[in-house]
Amino acid sequence: MERGIFITFEGGEGAGKTTVIERLARELTAAGHQVMVTREPGGVEIAEQIRGVILDLNNTTMDGRTEALLYAAARRQHLVEKVIPALESGAIVLCDRFVDSSLAYQGYARGLGMDEVYAINRFAIHDVMPDRTIYLDLSPEVGLSRIQSNKDREKNRLDVEKLSFHERVREGYLKLLEQYPDRIVKVNAEEDRESVYLQITEQLKRYLIKS
Amino acid sequence: MERGIFITFEGGEGAGKTTVIERLARELTAAGHQVMVTREPGGVEIAEQIRGVILDLNNTTMDGRTEALLYAAARRQHLVEKVIPALESGAIVLCDRFVDSSLAYQGYARGLGMDEVYAINRFAIHDVMPDRTIYLDLSPEVGLSRIQSNKDREKNRLDVEKLSFHERVREGYLKLLEQYPDRIVKVNAEEDRESVYLQITEQLKRYLIKS
Repeated sequence: MERGIFITFEGGEGAGKTTVIERLARELTAAGHQVMVTREPGGVEIAEQIRGVILDLNNTTMDGRTEALLYAAARRQHLVEKVIPALESGAIVLCDRFVDSSLAYQGYARGLGMDEVYAINRFAIHDVMPDRTIYLDLSPEVGLSRIQSNKDREKNRLDVEKLSFHERVREGYLKLLEQYPDRIVKVNAEEDRESVYLQITEQLKRYLIKS
Repeated sequence: MERGIFITFEGGEGAGKTTVIERLARELTAAGHQVMVTREPGGVEIAEQIRGVILDLNNTTMDGRTEALLYAAARRQHLVEKVIPALESGAIVLCDRFVDSSLAYQGYARGLGMDEVYAINRFAIHDVMPDRTIYLDLSPEVGLSRIQSNKDREKNRLDVEKLSFHERVREGYLKLLEQYPDRIVKVNAEEDRESVYLQITEQLKRYLIKS
């Protein structure tokens, strides 16, 4: 059986990844594709336990390198237990955040160095890279105001970072875009929902139509 | 103020590290040294949480790379919150297990590769290497029979591994000894307690007598 297609979605807080992924999954499924939607830690018990440590608001003394290693550990377990089996069964995997999040957040925004953070993530992913990555680009002001107006969304440790941190995250993503022009596609996420969705389906068209 | 001295103790299960470290700490303290005894996770809250995930007997699906990344994460946090501050205050730090445990257990015995595991640990330790490492060498048969006769000791997930695993751990340590002859010292831990202790104080003499 043919290996599936691995598509990841990236972007700052409030970029609208969830909405886009849900709609894309619905339409792909209706068109007869086998689709798996996931996000780290993805209901994988060990990865959930690790995520619990990372996002605990009480863990204020967490070192940046510890955090980056924990993300890589949770990523590994989610990949092994959930993503790889789905790809092997031929599914289209739509994953909310993956390795680029660590490079932008820890590598660039926290200043650990993108190359160094890539080194530990290479150990974690062990050659399983996305076929395509959609980067939903928007200014942190717009993203954070969207989050604040959404009362259902539970705040986590990253949401409460300063605005300057989220600006560095965006700069990090833009650097990744330069570095991996064949894999990462930028979409303007400040436009209205319909327009954002059309930009994405346009980009993924060539991957999503079976030959 | 002068930086302290960082000494780590390594070896398979039942090698007698705890006994040796306790006695050494007592005698160094009596001689007027500032001493800190520690072991990962060392009472550091975040590192304890990570350790809980690693050693949970229910986590049977844990991937080897996940485990190695978690050890590196716990190591980082323990180093930052406990070891580095002690070294900066001029203390002799006696640490039960450190980076070599990951290289022997995950890198060699689990077959992840010593170089690959060293890469993620370089990220974690960020240039803080031990000044001296005491490796307590003994056959796994002797080590495991010592553990089994000690009813006070709570069994963890590593104790219940097969004998062949512990044999590979020993081979891994012996490879490290070849690789870092200036840092690691081998001590025969099958001898009686007094003799083992004398071998160690002989090796550490030059570090422990202040000029």
